[in-house]
Order: sequence, then C-alpha cells, then structure tokens
Amino acid sequence: MKQFTSKPLLVRYGETDQMGVVHHSNYLRYFEVARLEWLSALGVSYALMEKEGLIMPVIDVKVTYKIPALFDDSLTIYIFLRELPRVKIIFSYEIKNQKDEIVCNGETTLAFLNTKTRKPVRCPEEFSELFST
Amino acid sequence: MKQFTSKPLLVRYGETDQMGVVHHSNYLRYFEVARLEWLSALGVSYALMEKEGLIMPVIDVKVTYKIPALFDDSLTIYIFLRELPRVKIIFSYEIKNQKDEIVCNGETTLAFLNTKTRKPVRCPEEFSELFST
Amino acid sequence: MKQFTSKPLLVRYGETDQMGVVHHSNYLRYFEVARLEWLSALGVSYALMEKEGLIMPVIDVKVTYKIPALFDDSLTIYIFLRELPRVKIIFSYEIKNQKDEIVCNGETTLAFLNTKTRKPVRCPEEFSELFST
Amino acid sequence: MKQFTSKPLLVRYGETDQMGVVHHSNYLRYFEVARLEWLSALGVSYALMEKEGLIMPVIDVKVTYKIPALFDDSLTIYIFLRELPRVKIIFSYEIKNQKDEIVCNGETTLAFLNTKTRKPVRCPEEFSELFST
Repeated sequence: MKQFTSKPLLVRYGETDQMGVVHHSNYLRYFEVARLEWLSALGVSYALMEKEGLIMPVIDVKVTYKIPALFDDSLTIYIFLRELPRVKIIFSYEIKNQKDEIVCNGETTLAFLNTKTRKPVRCPEEFSELFST
Repeated sequence: MKQFTSKPLLVRYGETDQMGVVHHSNYLRYFEVARLEWLSALGVSYALMEKEGLIMPVIDVKVTYKIPALFDDSLTIYIFLRELPRVKIIFSYEIKNQKDEIVCNGETTLAFLNTKTRKPVRCPEEFSELFST
Repeated sequence: MKQFTSKPLLVRYGETDQMGVVHHSNYLRYFEVARLEWLSALGVSYALMEKEGLIMPVIDVKVTYKIPALFDDSLTIYIFLRELPRVKIIFSYEIKNQKDEIVCNGETTLAFLNTKTRKPVRCPEEFSELFST
Repeated sequence: MKQFTSKPLLVRYGETDQMGVVHHSNYLRYFEVARLEWLSALGVSYALMEKEGLIMPVIDVKVTYKIPALFDDSLTIYIFLRELPRVKIIFSYEIKNQKDEIVCNGETTLAFLNTKTRKPVRCPEEFSELFST
C-alpha cells in the first residue's frame, strides 16, 4: 500500500482569512490529517506510538498552491509514498476540491525520533513493512 | 499586584477570517498571551512550573464581543484578579484597540492540577502571594 | 427542528497543545463546525447567505470544560436552540467523546448583520422558520 | 533595503502541540508576521493595499526545520529578498531563537493579484522600488 485517499474534508469557516480563502498555513494541517488517517487505516495508532517511544516530527515541507480552497469546499487529499521509509519518510500530497480541481501539491518529510531522547532512530521494520505491500 | 496591562499585541493576518475581522476563537489566545505575560512579569516561568509539577488548564471561559478587531490593530489587554486564587484562579479581561475602544470583555477560570496525576491541587502559597501585594 | 447532532469530528493532532490535550480555544471552532453543519442540513448555505447580504458574527460565548479531549478522540456535538431567533440566535452545545463522556458545554450568541453596512438586522423569517418545526 | 529583521516574537502557548514544541504549521504564520512587519517598516499598509486593489496570496512555500521552537522562546525572523519582485516576489527566511540557534529556514513566493478580478498583475513599480535601495 503506497498510496492513500483521505475521507472528504470540509473546509471550516475559521480556516479562511480575510482574503476570503483558506489561509495557506492550513494546508499543512490538512496534510497532517490525511497522513494520520492513513496510519489509522493501516492499523497504526500514532497516539500509542508516541507513548511507546516514537515521535515523527516534520522536518521539511513544500507546498505549491494552485487554486484557493474556499469555505465549505469538500477536499480530498491523495497521498503517495515514493520510496520506503528508512531514517526519514517522505509523503507527497495532492489536494483536490469537489470539482476535481487541483488545489495544491505538497511534500512533507518526517523524521523518526525517540520520544524521550529526541534522537533520530531508524524507521521500525514493522512500520516500514506496512507501506511495502 | 492585582492587575496587569499587556504589551501591545498586533493582530496577525492569519487571525482574520473571511468576515474580514479576527476570528472569535482567537481572543481566547490573546487572553492566554496576556495571562502568561503577567506571570512572566511576576517572575514566574509557566514553562518551568509545568515541568515542576503544576499545570493550569482553563476550565471555564466567557467572552462578550463589542466591536471586531481588524488585521494590524494594536490591542492592549487589561487583566484583573477579583479575588486571590485558592483552588481556582479567575482572570477578568478587557481588550482595547489603538483607538481605546473596547473590543471585548472576558473571564477565564483556571484550575491547578498536578502535572502527573492530573488531580486538582490547592494554589501554592508562593504563587498566590504574588498577586496579594 | 430545534436540535441537531453533528457528524463525528476527529480531534486533529495540530489541535492539541503541550499539555497533551485539545487547546481550549478549539472548542469554539468545533461549535462553529457543528453550527454550520446544522445550517447545511437545513438547506441553508451560509457561504451564499454572506454573499447575499447577511453575516452572523458571534457576539457572546461561554464554555465550561469538563474533561479534556485528546488527539484522535471522536467528538459528537449536540446543539440545541432554546428559543426562536429574533435579533439574536443563541445556540447551546454539549460535546461528548467516543465513551459518551461530556467533554464540555457551551453557548454562543450570534447577531444578524447586513454584510455591507454591518448594522444589526432582524432574523429573516424564512431563516427563523427553519428552526420552528 | 533588501533585508529585514523582525522584532522578537514570543512563542505562544497555544502554538505548541502535544509533542511539546511549536506545531510546524505555525512557522508559516511567523513568516507572515515578519513579512507584513517589513512592509509596515517600509511605509506600506498591506490592509490599505488590499482595499485599493492588490492582494498578495502565497503561491509556494518551503520550510526546513532545524531545531524545534518551544513555548516562550523569543524568535527573530530574518528576511531576505534575492531579486526584485516582478510578477512574483520571493522572500527567504531564517528564524533564530534567543540562543542564536537556527530554528528553521524557509522561502515563500507570493503573487500579485487584482483584488476584484483575482487575476495576476505586475508588481507596481512604487512597490518594487521600496526594495531596490
């Protein structure tokens, strides 16, 4: 499983700004929602993972905005994994609206850190394997 | 010291919504900024307090909105403590803009909890005393 | 129709703060999501309403927090209207988590304003009627 | 003037997440604060600009996170303009904390659009000139 499609996500009023469109910082939050939804779909509880010792901070992001998302738009987030995770995991995203128009593309790189020491660790094999089939 | 005046706080673009004014949820964040600024001014590091075992979650809020705050408005938050804290602490707020117009009034009640057990504790005396003079 | 139950709303990671629970300001955003979902269910497009001349700013809020909501909690928001709207509309809320525990209660009062003049107007009859049956 | 240093910006409690650090989406908000502070320092009111017909939406962002910013950290945002704006304007950023450690680097590209038509326009000469000296 190397790709995932999020459930439709409705743009909230409070996510707009006075330009009348979604504030650009919120797309990073949409990416996150989709990413964690994917983990859930794979049977991984990120909440549990954090408690058991592994956190996955974002260490790099890129977003290219195509057309603005508006209040009440229904967004679908498509996620892709180009390669299996090792010390990092790179997710690519495409967000489309209800008219199937591309709203934005993006990429986020996450590291694997030990919750306590905050030192980098290798991606656990059982985690990496989830994405390999 | 039973009252405190925050430093001027500039409304950020991303805090507005498509109504062209500050989203109503953000005033709770402004209250929080002023509250923690007050603690700092009293020589209390809330960050340290949390580590040493005391957290202060908000358990009740009230806000009455008078006129909207706009992007780039310079807000001043006036905080008052009507009574000395015991098991709870109640802060009252008034936010004014650069024209000295009242933007909103509010009140937040915070509890004192042990960081680990998350059980209520009495307000530490050395904390309560900070507000008594 | 004087009450409404929101679709389940999953707490997002970015909605937590370092206390490990949902930041208290976000419940106002959850209330808003549920409120606008109710309008949609009644066949009202708030986005269209704003364009056609009516905005509904929040002028008063109250929240009482019972237990914290956590990342990935599934929240249900119950909304009630105690009386028919006139120049204001008062929504009452109760949020419950997946264990059916009460997370918080709240109330928000909204005004009806003309989009352009930003002056108060009476609640349109066709709007008020939606809630009367 | 091709570079600008922001006023110190204190990390707010509500900007942290349960990892105990600033949520990664907030750095885009910090960039925005610094960018608009620069415009103000140049004598440009972005609020007025929007009213008079020019909006500047973000069309591309990149952020590389080095070390996490924490609650109450005092951040300074350094902005650079590598080339004069034409149809786009590209800002580069470096955020440092109170220990002069690099927190993150980033870049945002903004377009110039006509407020009403939302069509791209060339950067106004008087605007571009502000950055040329």
